[in-house]
Amino acid sequence: MPHITVQMFPGRSIEQKRALVAELTRTTCAVLGCGPGAVSIILSDVAPHDWAEAGVLYSDAKAQPSE
Amino acid sequence: MPHITVQMFPGRSIEQKRALVAELTRTTCAVLGCGPGAVSIILSDVAPHDWAEAGVLYSDAKAQPSE
Amino acid sequence: MPHITVQMFPGRSIEQKRALVAELTRTTCAVLGCGPGAVSIILSDVAPHDWAEAGVLYSDAKAQPSE
Amino acid sequence: MPHITVQMFPGRSIEQKRALVAELTRTTCAVLGCGPGAVSIILSDVAPHDWAEAGVLYSDAKAQPSE
Amino acid sequence: MPHITVQMFPGRSIEQKRALVAELTRTTCAVLGCGPGAVSIILSDVAPHDWAEAGVLYSDAKAQPSE
Amino acid sequence: MPHITVQMFPGRSIEQKRALVAELTRTTCAVLGCGPGAVSIILSDVAPHDWAEAGVLYSDAKAQPSE
Repeated sequence: MPHITVQMFPGRSIEQKRALVAELTRTTCAVLGCGPGAVSIILSDVAPHDWAEAGVLYSDAKAQPSE
Repeated sequence: MPHITVQMFPGRSIEQKRALVAELTRTTCAVLGCGPGAVSIILSDVAPHDWAEAGVLYSDAKAQPSE
Repeated sequence: MPHITVQMFPGRSIEQKRALVAELTRTTCAVLGCGPGAVSIILSDVAPHDWAEAGVLYSDAKAQPSE
Repeated sequence: MPHITVQMFPGRSIEQKRALVAELTRTTCAVLGCGPGAVSIILSDVAPHDWAEAGVLYSDAKAQPSE
Repeated sequence: MPHITVQMFPGRSIEQKRALVAELTRTTCAVLGCGPGAVSIILSDVAPHDWAEAGVLYSDAKAQPSE
Repeated sequence: MPHITVQMFPGRSIEQKRALVAELTRTTCAVLGCGPGAVSIILSDVAPHDWAEAGVLYSDAKAQPSE
């Protein structure tokens, strides 16, 4: 019954989301030995002005991270 | 101090949300024996293209679930 | 596909938890018009020394709340 | 590695968000004795019609709370 | 900056957890095109008596799911 | 109505938790202009073998982070 949540920056295409949930499910089942029907996933967008590291919003950071 | 979060598909009317928080609060207090003032609830919309089961986005699923 | 999370103080009996998930599911389906199979619930204990309101841990509060 | 999530009503300016993550990070590091690089924060808007206390949506409450 | 949370039944070995975070990170980076340093993961155990589907605790379900 | 969640490594003393919730509440109110009664906080321990960065569990990392 793994329930997975992924928080990430906005802007992913539907193709990327489709691939992401398919691959995360496959990976999880391979490692944990569960059937795909047991895995649910929720994707959630977080804007760079709502995410901070080291006290600085990503929207303020000079160099955006590699993602 | 029960704190409840409900994630669901978008599109509920304000009347449904109003009824949902009223009823969930009443149910929780009846079962746990707490006062309504102790219960807080956050509702959160999750789009079908951000929710997957068995590795498939709900927006891709042939037959949408009964909800 | 409502996914519900309930955070509450520890100490509920298994009978209370059983009743809580049954009743919350029934309430949710009645209001939203979904089938019970669409509802998943996760219960989560939060100790009074890990929960604060108005800047004070519940374990430090003079009068415990009604729950 | 403190990871902090703040759920609040919409409408904060970017200046408030910038100040909030800077100050929360500074506060956390001062109390826990960690470096700022260890702290990540996610801000999340919750609309008054998606947040309830005592079974009533904030958007329905006569007097809005002081925040 | 994907931040991933995995909720699952207790009882995974440290080897399984190690493999899970390594593989989920690799999968996420391959699909989203980000560096591994951008991915953080939190694993969280949920006991069968704290998890319900269709209004029934997993600890009460006759046949445990395949996971 | 800010609701704050802090996930951190286990081992904080009750004094640290008491100071943390008091200071985070004060900081949040100062920046957002809300009353302390509007702020609730939940602290949550995450073990180093349940937390990963860059695909590696903190319990496996050679050098523990500065926190």
